[in-house]
Amino acid sequence: MELSTIYAPIQEDLIKVENELKSVSKVDFSWLAELLNYSLGSSGKGIRPALTLLSGKFYHYNLDTLLPMATAVEVLHIATLVHDDAIDKSSVRRGKPTLYKVWGEDKSVLLGDYLFAKAGELTAATQNLRAIKLFAQTLRTISTGELAQIFSAFSLEQTYEQYIQRVSRKTAALFILATESGSTLSKAPEESIKILNEYGYNLGIAFQIVDDILDFVGTEEELGKPIGSDLIQGTLTLPAMLLLERFPEDNPVKKIFQNEDKDENVKLAIERIRDSSIIEECYRTASDYCAKACSNLNLLPDNTSRQALIDLANYVVSRKK
Amino acid sequence: MELSTIYAPIQEDLIKVENELKSVSKVDFSWLAELLNYSLGSSGKGIRPALTLLSGKFYHYNLDTLLPMATAVEVLHIATLVHDDAIDKSSVRRGKPTLYKVWGEDKSVLLGDYLFAKAGELTAATQNLRAIKLFAQTLRTISTGELAQIFSAFSLEQTYEQYIQRVSRKTAALFILATESGSTLSKAPEESIKILNEYGYNLGIAFQIVDDILDFVGTEEELGKPIGSDLIQGTLTLPAMLLLERFPEDNPVKKIFQNEDKDENVKLAIERIRDSSIIEECYRTASDYCAKACSNLNLLPDNTSRQALIDLANYVVSRKK
Repeated sequence: MELSTIYAPIQEDLIKVENELKSVSKVDFSWLAELLNYSLGSSGKGIRPALTLLSGKFYHYNLDTLLPMATAVEVLHIATLVHDDAIDKSSVRRGKPTLYKVWGEDKSVLLGDYLFAKAGELTAATQNLRAIKLFAQTLRTISTGELAQIFSAFSLEQTYEQYIQRVSRKTAALFILATESGSTLSKAPEESIKILNEYGYNLGIAFQIVDDILDFVGTEEELGKPIGSDLIQGTLTLPAMLLLERFPEDNPVKKIFQNEDKDENVKLAIERIRDSSIIEECYRTASDYCAKACSNLNLLPDNTSRQALIDLANYVVSRKK
Repeated sequence: MELSTIYAPIQEDLIKVENELKSVSKVDFSWLAELLNYSLGSSGKGIRPALTLLSGKFYHYNLDTLLPMATAVEVLHIATLVHDDAIDKSSVRRGKPTLYKVWGEDKSVLLGDYLFAKAGELTAATQNLRAIKLFAQTLRTISTGELAQIFSAFSLEQTYEQYIQRVSRKTAALFILATESGSTLSKAPEESIKILNEYGYNLGIAFQIVDDILDFVGTEEELGKPIGSDLIQGTLTLPAMLLLERFPEDNPVKKIFQNEDKDENVKLAIERIRDSSIIEECYRTASDYCAKACSNLNLLPDNTSRQALIDLANYVVSRKK
């Protein structure tokens, strides 16, 4: 199913989020407007703001608060990408040169800070203290996850549990922010908030596992960025972890992490992973998380948004980019 | 007058802020605790948290909100320093190697993000929406100021007004956050909040002008960092601006910005500025701002905090580090 079909119940309001994003770029300084336009302009899949809006559809759907919140979630997401690209020295994202590549590290760091602040202001505009606290906690959780990734880079001693914990921090936290803020702002009862929080958590993990799969099986054209980048940066993701488990000796991942013939071994690791049942196994894990994400949705009011959340979970494991 | 004497009315509570800062470092991961300890451990002058507490002393002094807010202000300050050092590639700060020097750029960027988030959480703990909004606005203003500084680096076409605007963003904004949040949280009437906001603004400008003076006349031992660093980074501060104005031809600042014999010309610029009346003129400007800062304090209730704010303004222009 296409994303645009899934988004049907909130289609008009997603366009409003896009307009809000555009108005973030309207600032007095032309040099700042240019940076903002560039970073906010290349639209992604919009999954996170969609989650906020969809999660807000079960009780009192109030755009006065849901619109700034959905925008905040997307701005926060983009801010973390801007910093990530600066840290990873990534050249390409979403098929175009990164802000880092065009403007350099210094401006990327400061523009990321600016966007964090803007996201904070948008969240504050909801006037909802719970959403505000969750927002700040989420940024802290994401930073912790990113730091954990750097501190564990090029280390072969990582467990599956550590991988899931890292992924839950660096990716699922933002999905939780999206769903929990949406449900909170729509004055959902506590049990419903919990269901949507768990949906966000499990969907986020599944989303990242698929991201990690695509880094091995995707194409540069589809992904809009080079493949094998996780290995090059020393990030041990689930597919690489399984490859290590299956071939503890003479393993290309080991060699990459020990800095032996990196390019050659990245190619080899990609080949071996593609040729094995590892990808299938990873997809099974991702599907399990998606199933878990949806397992309690039936306790929510039955409406088009509930179906959209289920369809979105299916989309997440079938997506090619 | 010594800072410790000025701080007398809030001495005990400043120690509580220090303890709050220490507890920020108490986290589950040892690698994260180490980074936090390092960045939060080297205590500065504590002017910003002191301003929050002093500004909170005129009406309902409530530590339940003032303590997290004062801590948030200091954590935000440190976060901006961590990012600044990474951007400027500074080796030394407060007499010890910077986080950037010890742990590198990547971890500095992410730790700064972590600290922004922590400061946001502390601010949210006040449950005061006005303080929360001001906090997010302030971070955005500071980022704008820092970006403006980078975009204007090595440009000789800068006016005094642009300098003041830049300084008001990158430094005074945080002073305003400190004083306005303190007065807001103590339920001060609007006129009093305005007086303390203006105090923060003017004191912040004065503080930065003195910082810019010290970069020319201070010693490395006193400052805990190398002198002449602004010129090396292409930042045109008030003393250099005045030197350019007085000697429009054959000017070392011009040569530095055109990348001619940098080291030699930095030395020459420092000498010429020291040997002229420029420093005196800059101090006069700083003193004017301090006088303006204090000009309406007499409209606030007369107490020891009011005198402390006046003494602090005098300290800011007489400080040697």
